[in-house]
Amino acid sequence: MSTDELAALPWRLDSPLSAVPSAVDAQLKEYLSRSQEEFSPIGSLVGGAITVLSDFIVNGGKRVRPTFAWAGIRAAIEGGGGSPDALCGKGGDATSSSSADFNQGAILNALSAFEFIQACALIHDDIIDRSDTRRGFSTAHRTFESKHRERGWLGSSEHYGVSQAILIGDLAFAWADDLYNGSGLSATALQRARPAWRAMRTEVIAGQILDIALEANGSEDVADSFAVIKYKTASYTVARPLHIGAALAGANEQTQSMLRNVGQDIGEAFQLRDDQLGVFGDPEVTGKPSGDDLRTGKRTTLINEALRSGGEPQVAALRAGLGKGEDSTEADIERLRDIIYDTGAQAKVEKLIEARTQRAIESLQAGGLGADITAELTQLAEKLTHRRF
Amino acid sequence: MSTDELAALPWRLDSPLSAVPSAVDAQLKEYLSRSQEEFSPIGSLVGGAITVLSDFIVNGGKRVRPTFAWAGIRAAIEGGGGSPDALCGKGGDATSSSSADFNQGAILNALSAFEFIQACALIHDDIIDRSDTRRGFSTAHRTFESKHRERGWLGSSEHYGVSQAILIGDLAFAWADDLYNGSGLSATALQRARPAWRAMRTEVIAGQILDIALEANGSEDVADSFAVIKYKTASYTVARPLHIGAALAGANEQTQSMLRNVGQDIGEAFQLRDDQLGVFGDPEVTGKPSGDDLRTGKRTTLINEALRSGGEPQVAALRAGLGKGEDSTEADIERLRDIIYDTGAQAKVEKLIEARTQRAIESLQAGGLGADITAELTQLAEKLTHRRF
Repeated sequence: MSTDELAALPWRLDSPLSAVPSAVDAQLKEYLSRSQEEFSPIGSLVGGAITVLSDFIVNGGKRVRPTFAWAGIRAAIEGGGGSPDALCGKGGDATSSSSADFNQGAILNALSAFEFIQACALIHDDIIDRSDTRRGFSTAHRTFESKHRERGWLGSSEHYGVSQAILIGDLAFAWADDLYNGSGLSATALQRARPAWRAMRTEVIAGQILDIALEANGSEDVADSFAVIKYKTASYTVARPLHIGAALAGANEQTQSMLRNVGQDIGEAFQLRDDQLGVFGDPEVTGKPSGDDLRTGKRTTLINEALRSGGEPQVAALRAGLGKGEDSTEADIERLRDIIYDTGAQAKVEKLIEARTQRAIESLQAGGLGADITAELTQLAEKLTHRRF
Repeated sequence: MSTDELAALPWRLDSPLSAVPSAVDAQLKEYLSRSQEEFSPIGSLVGGAITVLSDFIVNGGKRVRPTFAWAGIRAAIEGGGGSPDALCGKGGDATSSSSADFNQGAILNALSAFEFIQACALIHDDIIDRSDTRRGFSTAHRTFESKHRERGWLGSSEHYGVSQAILIGDLAFAWADDLYNGSGLSATALQRARPAWRAMRTEVIAGQILDIALEANGSEDVADSFAVIKYKTASYTVARPLHIGAALAGANEQTQSMLRNVGQDIGEAFQLRDDQLGVFGDPEVTGKPSGDDLRTGKRTTLINEALRSGGEPQVAALRAGLGKGEDSTEADIERLRDIIYDTGAQAKVEKLIEARTQRAIESLQAGGLGADITAELTQLAEKLTHRRF
């Protein structure tokens, strides 16, 4: 089936995890076009800025967080102690009819909200990282910068680009909350998930605050880089979306806690895999330059582990060779890779990934959830932690 | 009574508008210290960033938006068709006891949320305007920049400052929503006010997007600068807070619409007064340099009006003299002032202020609300639109 055909299917209680991206894409488009209509009367310059945000959101992304949130909902319903009624129904919610126990639009609104948070995070991160492109497109601040330059406007094009990108990131963040809290899910469901929703947004911002502070203070501590993995990636990308989904649908405490732990393990393994790929990944498969993390000199957990485990000459060679950007030849990169491999850091990180993936899968198998959601979550965990892309 | 004594008083249904700032200050401190405790375990660097946000929020501000939101609540209850029960009570709200019809903490949470939005707006605006100080303190990006420099950290101190300030602005925005949606006000009340809450946040961001785009494209159009006043100031600062308060407390349609119009008028008059003060204000009273807007060359509605109404030599002299910063002598500034006065722009803007203030006060007097809230709102309108500070 094509993406459009998939998106046109009615959303059901047993819609597979793999159906989330196209359904969320369709919902995002609908919300964005409604918002464009509502707010562009403020001025065509505002309409133009909303278009930049829309393009950014529509142009891709794997919709990982909505997928895990849906997994949390299904886990709650399929054996986790929750119910469709806990999610959508009855009591205190003026937007959904009181007899309905399943509100397709409300669920897709809430799932889509995660992508607006992600849009804000990426647009602001791209400013912070001074990135020029993302997913093959110009980053938001560069898009505004180019428009400014093309039109011959007054002042610094670069500063203009940053300014407008800060603002459309803020807009995305505001709309995330509107979509989520105004989703149409029951007030009781939103109330139950509120602590997790609050924690997720605080943790991703705090993780990013920590990340750039550690980069600035030159930390090479494994515990430091691991804390960034924990909050900026694992919590935000997997553990909290699962947790929020489960809480929304009224999962019991045991299921919520199991899913958070499973999510934390999958998320940590996912980011550690990313660390491995940043050093050893095939550029034809990753789509990033060979040894990207070696060229930027980013102190990932893998690299900090090598610096901790390596002998004095290995550490000296690493310090001298990291972060040289385009000055590093392929041979330089290959030598750095060999050193990291020889320190045993690569094997150690691989073990960490394995242990987490195994533990997550075992917990899932023993988690008492239905066979379908158990199998789909297991498959997703394996895909994310073993990925070669 | 001291501020602390005021803050310690119980919040009541008839607490005066003048009591809002100290009560909100106390609530903000309590929320900030709770959040510090909850999230600083992520790392001391995160705790440090939260402290920068706390200092920013605690160090002042007139709490104008919470004051207008409280005015909206009181207007609803005092003759506007609303009730304490509509605001706090019964049905779908798990955090407030179902028998309570007045929840002091819930109200103060919701009022305080406006200050977190304002913190985000100011922190991000200060980056955009490249401001060094605000309310006599270093701006957030400059504070982070100084810390980076003092500690001799790696990379650009300036970029570090901007990056961390973007992130704590985001944090403030996230917490605004948590405080508001998790305030403990009834789900029905929040549901009623949702469109206004969504509109307020979108309008302030859109107004700022418009403002910097117009500055970049060199617009000198009165309608353009007036659109910025409408959304960035009037809607955000007065009309929507009144509207949100009234909707939360269940005001009837007529009262909601009256308050929005009154708020729009007060807000526009307030900003037009600011334009006047930016040119003609006494620096000893405004606390800003003499003729601040003349030195920055900002195209305010007053200045655009002068450019539209002035004769050719006046317009040429204005264009030549505006935006010279510290290069302008006091005599230069005085000459520009005289030109603007002579074009009739000052008188015209004064008339706009008068008309709006009058219309707002007349609508209030005829609005059918109780005598107390009518008097307090009238006094506030006069203070904000006639202010010489």
